[in-house]
Amino acid sequence: MDQKTKTGYRGYVLKALENSSCEIGDILRVEKEDKVFEGILIPRSESGDDKHVVIKLKNGYNLGIKVTSETIIKRIGKGTKPSFAIPSIPKQNPNLPEVVILSTGGTIASRVDYRTGAVRSALSARDLYGVVPELSDIARIKTEIVFSLYSENITQTHWSQLAKKIEEHISQGVNGVVVAHGTDTMAYTAAALSFALQDLPVPVIFVGAQRSSDRPSSDAALNLIGAVKVASRASFAEVAIAMHENLSDEIIVINRGTKVRKCHTSRRDTFKPVNASPLAKVAKGKITVLAKDFKKRNPLRKMILKPKFSESAVLVKFYPGFDPKVIDWHVKNGVRGLILEGTGLGHVSKYCFESIENAIVNGVVVGLASQCIWGRVNMHVYDTGRDLLNIGVIPLEDMFPETALVKLMWVLGQTEQPEEAKKLLKTNIIGEFSSRTLPDEILTKGGCKDVK
Amino acid sequence: MDQKTKTGYRGYVLKALENSSCEIGDILRVEKEDKVFEGILIPRSESGDDKHVVIKLKNGYNLGIKVTSETIIKRIGKGTKPSFAIPSIPKQNPNLPEVVILSTGGTIASRVDYRTGAVRSALSARDLYGVVPELSDIARIKTEIVFSLYSENITQTHWSQLAKKIEEHISQGVNGVVVAHGTDTMAYTAAALSFALQDLPVPVIFVGAQRSSDRPSSDAALNLIGAVKVASRASFAEVAIAMHENLSDEIIVINRGTKVRKCHTSRRDTFKPVNASPLAKVAKGKITVLAKDFKKRNPLRKMILKPKFSESAVLVKFYPGFDPKVIDWHVKNGVRGLILEGTGLGHVSKYCFESIENAIVNGVVVGLASQCIWGRVNMHVYDTGRDLLNIGVIPLEDMFPETALVKLMWVLGQTEQPEEAKKLLKTNIIGEFSSRTLPDEILTKGGCKDVK
Repeated sequence: MDQKTKTGYRGYVLKALENSSCEIGDILRVEKEDKVFEGILIPRSESGDDKHVVIKLKNGYNLGIKVTSETIIKRIGKGTKPSFAIPSIPKQNPNLPEVVILSTGGTIASRVDYRTGAVRSALSARDLYGVVPELSDIARIKTEIVFSLYSENITQTHWSQLAKKIEEHISQGVNGVVVAHGTDTMAYTAAALSFALQDLPVPVIFVGAQRSSDRPSSDAALNLIGAVKVASRASFAEVAIAMHENLSDEIIVINRGTKVRKCHTSRRDTFKPVNASPLAKVAKGKITVLAKDFKKRNPLRKMILKPKFSESAVLVKFYPGFDPKVIDWHVKNGVRGLILEGTGLGHVSKYCFESIENAIVNGVVVGLASQCIWGRVNMHVYDTGRDLLNIGVIPLEDMFPETALVKLMWVLGQTEQPEEAKKLLKTNIIGEFSSRTLPDEILTKGGCKDVK
Repeated sequence: MDQKTKTGYRGYVLKALENSSCEIGDILRVEKEDKVFEGILIPRSESGDDKHVVIKLKNGYNLGIKVTSETIIKRIGKGTKPSFAIPSIPKQNPNLPEVVILSTGGTIASRVDYRTGAVRSALSARDLYGVVPELSDIARIKTEIVFSLYSENITQTHWSQLAKKIEEHISQGVNGVVVAHGTDTMAYTAAALSFALQDLPVPVIFVGAQRSSDRPSSDAALNLIGAVKVASRASFAEVAIAMHENLSDEIIVINRGTKVRKCHTSRRDTFKPVNASPLAKVAKGKITVLAKDFKKRNPLRKMILKPKFSESAVLVKFYPGFDPKVIDWHVKNGVRGLILEGTGLGHVSKYCFESIENAIVNGVVVGLASQCIWGRVNMHVYDTGRDLLNIGVIPLEDMFPETALVKLMWVLGQTEQPEEAKKLLKTNIIGEFSSRTLPDEILTKGGCKDVK
């Protein structure tokens, strides 16, 4: 097939580009209504529509502009035509810190090749530099494909595998680890690795993309640059997620692995902190640490690897009309731990009490987290909560249900003993419980403590 | 027992109050550090601590102030001592609209008696006027206790009962309905009644309290005033929830029953709109409608009552390591409908496909909503979504999982036929699907449409 035809443009847009003698790599000015955009013409993916022209702006961001009869497209500069050959690896600067990028799959890993328009299924260092050349100014990059999965297919086994792989690279002395991961279950994996990789000497930063790189407004490159920056240079050594902070294209926010959740199906700022402030931000290439307490980077620290996760922990979400026989079935099935996703301050209906008690009597560790997501369970306020405490349900503070489940899977991977497991589940291991904050009223009411 | 001792104050605070000759009902000035507070001394609940004095501020809000040796308490006015006798019902103004307040239980109904400090288990009109005398300026109030339950114990049967009761009152000509409800499952009930009460002539407004009225900073009175205001006077006739908009004590926000969720365990502004703007706000006694489209109040409209809900619909939340045998068990158990709470744009792991397909083959209606909560499922983007669509899973647009479940329960209450049920589930019945909004980029990028 002729390489030239692989620009991805068709129909009306192709004609408009041809009329202006624009080729891939050229610098374009696009005028539309009262707005003017300038950038490099980049190829479309084959699945793209025939209505938009896509240019790469100066800030590295791709933008799609709908072309109508009103739109004026001008070629204002001759760009370097990107070669469709594999890009060369830029010279590594030996003075830069070294970062390993581990790929597990997902949008960011599979589609990152936005300059050539080719879809690659995974990333090599060569691919990365070809796509995000800025990386060579930040760190020496090495890459490894650990697996290549849509993140909804990632399970406990993969968490263990990934944890061991990270430990391997850290013991070889890298200055930071970046994990490219699908966004769907990235927060689960980040929480899992927060428990599996303790006393880290260097940061482990998860990164993904909500929009694939062959689409305009992809967040892949900026997120990756932010993640590599943090992995190589941040003063903290924790497991965290690096993604867009808001809809602008300027700030990458770093949230702790156990305190972050995917909160929007499609927005680039989908990851939101839960019951915690962000750990740090990256803006204009500068890292600002926001957390007061954090684990400091210390390359000499000996990390502790605890990669085992149980497959015998389940999450059960309560709702009106919920059938407690689901709990009985799990118990019969040999489940060892159960997270109840209750309502409000930590409640489920009283008609569930018998099944829950039966589970606990049978040695199942039962923890409760709130489906509110934000806030802290407090099972002392109402009868329902007190009854559940009396039965032996463990209130899980301000952990939201997903982190609570991951912690339980990890806890049951550490011990076979229910009592030991309960103790571990209640222990604040790596900051998954925030310290009890003062009620919000204090902030707004000025010095008056709310009565509890 | 001597009524005088029932102020609820003890220990150090009691002594401080006695030293300043302060009695319940007196106007106090409390000076603490550089702050000064003035208000009426109100009694404490018996479960209160012995460190705080509670005063009712001018704005009707209760405030607890920790008393230390530094705190100065002065009596600056003699208040009317509240009688501990049952307050009298104020004269009803025949020119005011009539509102019925239906009580179902919860914090707002059981503890609303903040002036006397007594705990009542449910509300009579007399109790209400005693507690929130402002109501008599807004509407003629009648009350009825429908049931008295912590909301986690409310099920489909109660939804039906409540729907019928509301229809009864509306057919008798009330100008609005207020439902006092526990906050834990209020959003589920509000969603349920949104489907059960169609073509409403007048508003049906749910209201609750995050802090019981015997606590300082209770939101009960303000929420109730806002709810009655809206029920009696708003220009719309929809099912909605009225609660604090933020931590200030000034704005009540009205959110649609199908587009609102409890998002914090304890904050007063716990109810947040999901994929929708609020319907209206109430500030300084004024209602401002925010929604562009709404069902207009029309007392002549004949409402349609569809109070039946199935008990054969379940919600199953997907997570890493989720065991699809749960789905098989539900199918064997005769379930007729199932909401999958998937990840991201609408995914579950491929190892679940067989169980899901088996469910659908067995006539189970399977819908998918995203655990992201915000955003819209789009199952055309990735293989996983396309595979699920091919199996016959119904993508539920921008409904979050809880509303999706309630809708499925209602749908299966309307028809025994799976095909008919699928059709209903896909139909936008009362605005539970928002119209597809333009991507956010349009707002921030200026006129450029994002490519999909």
